[in-house]
Amino acid sequence: ARPRVGYFYTGKTGTQLLAESMKKLTVKDYQSIPVVISENVSVYDAIVTIFLEDVGTVFVTDDEHHLAGVLSRKDLLRASLGQQELSTLPVNIIMTRMPNITMCEKDDLLIDVAKKLIDTQIDAVPVVKKTNSGYEVIGRLTKTNITKAFVALAEQEG
Amino acid sequence: ARPRVGYFYTGKTGTQLLAESMKKLTVKDYQSIPVVISENVSVYDAIVTIFLEDVGTVFVTDDEHHLAGVLSRKDLLRASLGQQELSTLPVNIIMTRMPNITMCEKDDLLIDVAKKLIDTQIDAVPVVKKTNSGYEVIGRLTKTNITKAFVALAEQEG
Repeated sequence: ARPRVGYFYTGKTGTQLLAESMKKLTVKDYQSIPVVISENVSVYDAIVTIFLEDVGTVFVTDDEHHLAGVLSRKDLLRASLGQQELSTLPVNIIMTRMPNITMCEKDDLLIDVAKKLIDTQIDAVPVVKKTNSGYEVIGRLTKTNITKAFVALAEQEG
Repeated sequence: ARPRVGYFYTGKTGTQLLAESMKKLTVKDYQSIPVVISENVSVYDAIVTIFLEDVGTVFVTDDEHHLAGVLSRKDLLRASLGQQELSTLPVNIIMTRMPNITMCEKDDLLIDVAKKLIDTQIDAVPVVKKTNSGYEVIGRLTKTNITKAFVALAEQEG
């Protein structure tokens, strides 16, 4: 049957169309540039980096430039309340470390990463590329990126 | 013209339907409970509250329980690096104060609040109710709420 002008065949409801177009969004189109520090730097330097780069989360890499840890503003705030001297405390003492890091890859669906962020109650995940020897950090995916995707979806032209 | 079974008239594309259903979402269906402190408490107490309540932002109210300020983890981290004694420093010294507070109301569109969060680069806004004498804080709308709305949209049944 040939649809007339003004009608189109879908067999689908509006909400199904909506869900389908959301399921086409992938990490690589919404990710940000990652901010990465070495695991040998101090907590003080990590806090300075967080302010200079204006991010909520920094990723920590080892000597081979592989992902070793994640540090959030919350981790840093907790550390700053402690009795330790921040300029001599290395970040690898307080960071969340492998294998406890929630990650994603560039071809993952944005919706799946959004669920991970909600389920794990974190603000950001590293976008990684698996290599033989570890994970290379190639991006950052945050609730800000999801919020931007939400706005972009609502504003796109038909 | 009467549509046949399996066809339905819309005159609209999938993306237009998507944008329309997103424009029906309002703050009141996605907001969280606000965490509020008095402007007389110390920065130290504000940090403890942030951890106990596990939120990224607290709202500060004056003696008449009206919105007076906003404090984020970022503000508190900055203060914790300073030389001041946190337990004697009142929050009203470091908070973002009226009239510089970005706010929303319960009937605002979620999409408009999402844009505000992006444009102002903040993580959360208070949901307020205007009274004759000021703004009463009735909720909290964050990038986490937007991320949850994003997931809910993708998962709704047709």
